[in-house]
Amino acid sequence: MALYVMKFGGSSVGDTERMQRVARRIVEKQDEGHQVAVVVSAMGDTTDDLIDQAKLLSNEPPAREMDMLMTTGEQISIALLSIAINALGRKAVSFTGWQAGFRTESEFGRARITDIHPERVKRALEEGSIVIVAGFQGMTEEGEITTFGRGGSDTTAVALAAAIAADYCEIYTDVDGVYSTDPRIVKNARKLNEISYDEMLELANLGAAVLHPRAVEYAKHNQVRLVVRSSFNHNEGTVVKEEASMEQGVVVSGIAYDKNVARISIVGVSHVPGVLAKVFGSLADSKIDVDIIVQSGVQGGKADFSFTVALSDRERALKVLESIRGDVPYEEVTSEEDLVKISIVGAGMVSHPGVAAQMFDVISKLDVNIKMVSTSEIKVSCVIDSGKLTEVVKALHTAYGLDTENQVFVGGPKDRR
Amino acid sequence: MALYVMKFGGSSVGDTERMQRVARRIVEKQDEGHQVAVVVSAMGDTTDDLIDQAKLLSNEPPAREMDMLMTTGEQISIALLSIAINALGRKAVSFTGWQAGFRTESEFGRARITDIHPERVKRALEEGSIVIVAGFQGMTEEGEITTFGRGGSDTTAVALAAAIAADYCEIYTDVDGVYSTDPRIVKNARKLNEISYDEMLELANLGAAVLHPRAVEYAKHNQVRLVVRSSFNHNEGTVVKEEASMEQGVVVSGIAYDKNVARISIVGVSHVPGVLAKVFGSLADSKIDVDIIVQSGVQGGKADFSFTVALSDRERALKVLESIRGDVPYEEVTSEEDLVKISIVGAGMVSHPGVAAQMFDVISKLDVNIKMVSTSEIKVSCVIDSGKLTEVVKALHTAYGLDTENQVFVGGPKDRR
Repeated sequence: MALYVMKFGGSSVGDTERMQRVARRIVEKQDEGHQVAVVVSAMGDTTDDLIDQAKLLSNEPPAREMDMLMTTGEQISIALLSIAINALGRKAVSFTGWQAGFRTESEFGRARITDIHPERVKRALEEGSIVIVAGFQGMTEEGEITTFGRGGSDTTAVALAAAIAADYCEIYTDVDGVYSTDPRIVKNARKLNEISYDEMLELANLGAAVLHPRAVEYAKHNQVRLVVRSSFNHNEGTVVKEEASMEQGVVVSGIAYDKNVARISIVGVSHVPGVLAKVFGSLADSKIDVDIIVQSGVQGGKADFSFTVALSDRERALKVLESIRGDVPYEEVTSEEDLVKISIVGAGMVSHPGVAAQMFDVISKLDVNIKMVSTSEIKVSCVIDSGKLTEVVKALHTAYGLDTENQVFVGGPKDRR
Repeated sequence: MALYVMKFGGSSVGDTERMQRVARRIVEKQDEGHQVAVVVSAMGDTTDDLIDQAKLLSNEPPAREMDMLMTTGEQISIALLSIAINALGRKAVSFTGWQAGFRTESEFGRARITDIHPERVKRALEEGSIVIVAGFQGMTEEGEITTFGRGGSDTTAVALAAAIAADYCEIYTDVDGVYSTDPRIVKNARKLNEISYDEMLELANLGAAVLHPRAVEYAKHNQVRLVVRSSFNHNEGTVVKEEASMEQGVVVSGIAYDKNVARISIVGVSHVPGVLAKVFGSLADSKIDVDIIVQSGVQGGKADFSFTVALSDRERALKVLESIRGDVPYEEVTSEEDLVKISIVGAGMVSHPGVAAQMFDVISKLDVNIKMVSTSEIKVSCVIDSGKLTEVVKALHTAYGLDTENQVFVGGPKDRR
């Protein structure tokens, strides 16, 4: 007997029929002799519908009230899923985030989990019940209802798995697992059978939507055995764990891209101590996440900086830079959109020099201009014009040996080349 | 400055436009210099829609999960109403039932309030916020989410008013106040300007849907000044208080009716001590509410009983009687539907003998058969065939001098005859 956390996203419970299919899937797991705790998201478009309703009333609804509103989406899901399981003759009991013991910081809309008190969940499991927990939500110490932000149900699942010492945390989604890149762009994208936490973390951070980065971080930190698989079939999915078995010749595991990128450049900044800290400190104070930062060579005591932010933060970032002009004298600020950040990720890079050089080579042979570069131990990111996205990802996918015939990988590990 | 509790029902917040109208109405009250706590129900058909969704999944959804499901309706309302008020530039903060401190027994679907800890509500009011509380819901000591049953938002409003010592509890609805009888049946029904708790309690118990009986009971017990008024206009509504000013010649204040009635008769029960206790004790154990009970004369050591239950309880009641046949020997059980209980209510009855006799006289002159009778100090109820409802109510309304020209009462007290 093992203890499973099974997480189902909104599209898996989008209507009554899907809800019933998920219920049967959960009961199957129990029939195999396991204890099951389930985390579920809001049904289908519920969250968006709720946001639309709020927008009809206000352009700037208070974040606290938005959390109050949006958490109802998951509460509806847990109740209905529990009802569906009870209808199959099994005992199921649903818990909101606060009932399941999720305590968070008080930053509404993006609250971080501070600790979990899963006593009620544990007790219900011990009594033989299937436990259904609302994803994406918790409560502050003051009893305020909070949400973790989009994708937060993954985090709920992983955090719950860690808190109740589950043997497996299965993330059910509408694809078969983690792919070498977006199958909508590269038809021959490979489903990966294994991937390391670090690689998954990079992929998730770099735009692969299949898992939320915070969830991967949490899984790595707590060594939760994570499986990404489809709720529509019984294929084996992708296992995310500490060290993926290194396959021969596999240097790059996956290619991610992110179109949500704006570049901002500050030209002619007086090169005095503390300037960088002032610029990026001010942006941080305004809750603007800065991604790639590039400083070009100092000339005549002046330097140029470029950095990227999310598209939606561009206007605010420009305002922040305007506001600190008195403290940080610069010549001008420019900005650019219609960009995409393409990243190759692979734990194998550490032992294979020249991976980045190969990437630059592939891109330049397509006559595509690389605007910014950023590297870490296991990834290389290049910012290019968004119009070149498909062309570049396809070429990289081929260059790093990721292409394969799709059907080969449907059956699970034994079919893997 | 006074402290108001304003309660808005589901039809008052049925869509965005109505929600905004309610928000303006609340802000008006604050503009008059008052502190305002608001109780709101689920929007329009939300609760029914949620029940429909559950029914698609199960014929017998667990009551606990139904409460989990249904409480989302009010949670959506409080969040949206708070957002609408904030959009008008006022500080508003929403609280679920448990956040507002409502503690209940654990009978899901019909939980009773045990106590209220309104500290958070009080603090928010002191900070100048408009407080929005979800109606109809609370939490048990074990942290389980419960509902009060239909109409429970009235109870929330009155209980909150008592707990925070509000000066007024205004129940906003889609009619102008409490009427002498159902205006859909009697065109000339009078809007009452005042009514006593006891009369209102009888009317509510006897089928007048405008207020929930439990709410009236709570108001009487805690001496909460209750006002029933329209959310669609500024007419003065009906004040419910300890002693309504007795008007000359007004013996009967209102006429209520209830079609949700089944009659069950037990014929030839052996007349031994403890039989009544056994019968009605068993029904009570099965949570079946018995209303009117009539025992006919004992003959040869045997008696006949008749009693009424809600239509939906009829089948179960018959089963209970079958199950106790061993302990309580009887000859046969019969039952009857398509009945209506018509009741006249008036505090003036106490000092005016002959009111019941007049009722029987009016009904018999219409050639309508009275099947059961029940009286209290301030009401008389008769059970008749439901087909005669309109005819009988109209005749009684005229006989007790309740008819009047509708328009006379629109303007409030000064227009009252």
